[in-house]
Amino acid sequence: MKIICSKTNLLHGVNIVSKAVPSRTTMAILECILIDASTNEIKLTANDMELGIETRIEGTIEERGVIALDAKIFSEIVRKLPDNEVTIITDNNFKTIITCEKAKFNIIGKSGDDFSYLPYIEKNQPVLLSQFTLKEVIRQTIFSISDSDNNKLMTGELFEITENQLKVVSLDGHRISIRNIDLKEAYDHYKVIVPGKTLQEVSKILPGDLNEYVSIFFTENHIVFEFANTTVVSRLIEGEYFKIEQMLSSDYETKIKINKRELLDCIDRATLLVKEGDKKPIIMNVTDENMELKINSFIGSMNEDIDIQKDGKDILIGFNPKFFIDALRVIDEEEVTLYMVNPKAPCFIKDDNETFIYLILPVNFNAASN
Amino acid sequence: MKIICSKTNLLHGVNIVSKAVPSRTTMAILECILIDASTNEIKLTANDMELGIETRIEGTIEERGVIALDAKIFSEIVRKLPDNEVTIITDNNFKTIITCEKAKFNIIGKSGDDFSYLPYIEKNQPVLLSQFTLKEVIRQTIFSISDSDNNKLMTGELFEITENQLKVVSLDGHRISIRNIDLKEAYDHYKVIVPGKTLQEVSKILPGDLNEYVSIFFTENHIVFEFANTTVVSRLIEGEYFKIEQMLSSDYETKIKINKRELLDCIDRATLLVKEGDKKPIIMNVTDENMELKINSFIGSMNEDIDIQKDGKDILIGFNPKFFIDALRVIDEEEVTLYMVNPKAPCFIKDDNETFIYLILPVNFNAASN
Repeated sequence: MKIICSKTNLLHGVNIVSKAVPSRTTMAILECILIDASTNEIKLTANDMELGIETRIEGTIEERGVIALDAKIFSEIVRKLPDNEVTIITDNNFKTIITCEKAKFNIIGKSGDDFSYLPYIEKNQPVLLSQFTLKEVIRQTIFSISDSDNNKLMTGELFEITENQLKVVSLDGHRISIRNIDLKEAYDHYKVIVPGKTLQEVSKILPGDLNEYVSIFFTENHIVFEFANTTVVSRLIEGEYFKIEQMLSSDYETKIKINKRELLDCIDRATLLVKEGDKKPIIMNVTDENMELKINSFIGSMNEDIDIQKDGKDILIGFNPKFFIDALRVIDEEEVTLYMVNPKAPCFIKDDNETFIYLILPVNFNAASN
Repeated sequence: MKIICSKTNLLHGVNIVSKAVPSRTTMAILECILIDASTNEIKLTANDMELGIETRIEGTIEERGVIALDAKIFSEIVRKLPDNEVTIITDNNFKTIITCEKAKFNIIGKSGDDFSYLPYIEKNQPVLLSQFTLKEVIRQTIFSISDSDNNKLMTGELFEITENQLKVVSLDGHRISIRNIDLKEAYDHYKVIVPGKTLQEVSKILPGDLNEYVSIFFTENHIVFEFANTTVVSRLIEGEYFKIEQMLSSDYETKIKINKRELLDCIDRATLLVKEGDKKPIIMNVTDENMELKINSFIGSMNEDIDIQKDGKDILIGFNPKFFIDALRVIDEEEVTLYMVNPKAPCFIKDDNETFIYLILPVNFNAASN
């Protein structure tokens, strides 16, 4: 194989596919990036068997061929090359020579035959979503997946398409994040659970352009994202997602309108009194026109008042401050509305059209000591 | 005690003195920042018994007093307060209330009586150095102190003043860094060893202004740096510094002029083939007008040619690449001159006036395998 391409293009491609290189594996071939110049285009691929990424880069193929190179070493070499044309030459023994200006690297690659190529996917009609919207919806929901493998379903996100609506849901047993997005046209019904890791990596490599689209394909076992010159193929998580409808109620006893920035800053300040592992709740004492926030830990205590607009009853309720911070950080509105029923029932943060719903369970606390 | 000052001033002061808070100690009082408002100015102090920093901040004293507050908690609170006036009130039981706008923190402080104040220093005539120069000279030498406590002298830097010359030296047994600086006037002779940690922290808090001066005072056991509203007092390292003069020779067999950026980039590229702990040298093969750099590791090999101007003999010599990178990074000149004698003798990187001298010992290598 002999190919020539610019350092910039090569580095861009390597950075994209590197997201699918497993950090730990017993199979050395999975730690490789495959350079496939066996046809008339140069493709880079990495695949950890759950998630595979392929991207095409511009360049000249002087001799067709395929080589698998250790991802870490190859990407470090590319990163440190001068900003100029890079030539990659391989021989039958997988000896690989990478040259750029006067710098010349010799490394040993692996046969492309051992590489696990991306699965072949029968593509039907794609669901179209702007890159910006997909990137945003991932950011707005990914924080409430579970990072424990105890319940596999919680490590993924529900992607459900019903006509021209996309619903994205994540939950970890203490909270639920829901985003509803209008699509430009109506599609068949799909309901799949996408691994959180896939979404995190897709989000990192998505340019996030408002006017460029991502094509999403659904199959029995896979989801495929196509954008720019890149294809991401991921396994789906098998199983039946949680029935969340029954947890969503529109009844409330207390409705609070509050400035988002003030609430977020206040809770953020309060958390510095809480050491990791220490489960001190933030207490909200809601009365007319006022929310007093209090936290009490062995380090000290804090309290602060925030002006609010309130409908309904007074309430004294406690929350894990992190859950509120996570949700408030991804809400763009200047003012948010909280709906509460009682100190044991979930609190909802949602907008009137329910484009977003964040459900947060309260925590018990000893009212006397706070 | 009751004081009022702006969050900005308070945070600035806290960030400065925090550099002298030990990260680990068995004495809880050392983990504190002392707020001393017992006179007509507000002073913050931290002291780890080796290094002490005091800084004055602007503010209003409504009731005089002294309090020691846990540095970590206090600085986190200050950092997260709104950007406004901060009021700190303490009572006789060291209960401390920090308020800013509607936020109110309660924490427990410690008695200022338990705090170890900075040692009293009899100040004689200060040596004056611009903030910029001091910050630079630390950066240009600090990398070659030893981080092992085996030889205490190597963990510090020599500061020697002879008339209107300041010489700063650091060495770790494999290399020596020397910087010579012209002072504006002549001073008494001083020769002290300043702990590397002190210099690192001073460098971090020095604004680095070209037109502002640092006053340096020397005593039997201490060095004092005064700048802006800040005083840094550090113990000196006791002992007789190494006699380096006998290691510095101006004889050479090979003199090489080379572009600094090209050499640095090339060595930097080469190091990616060297894993940590793996002591692979970079080999320089110097012939007329050309230096070939080569490195060979179990990952692969690299070689690259650089144009040079050479006087004297050809030479084949090997170095720890990190030592060359460290020295080249802090040399501002576009072109550097290397002086070599033979493959077992030190290489010098220096300028004609010897404002800087970097001595690097070569390493043995198996010429046959490279």
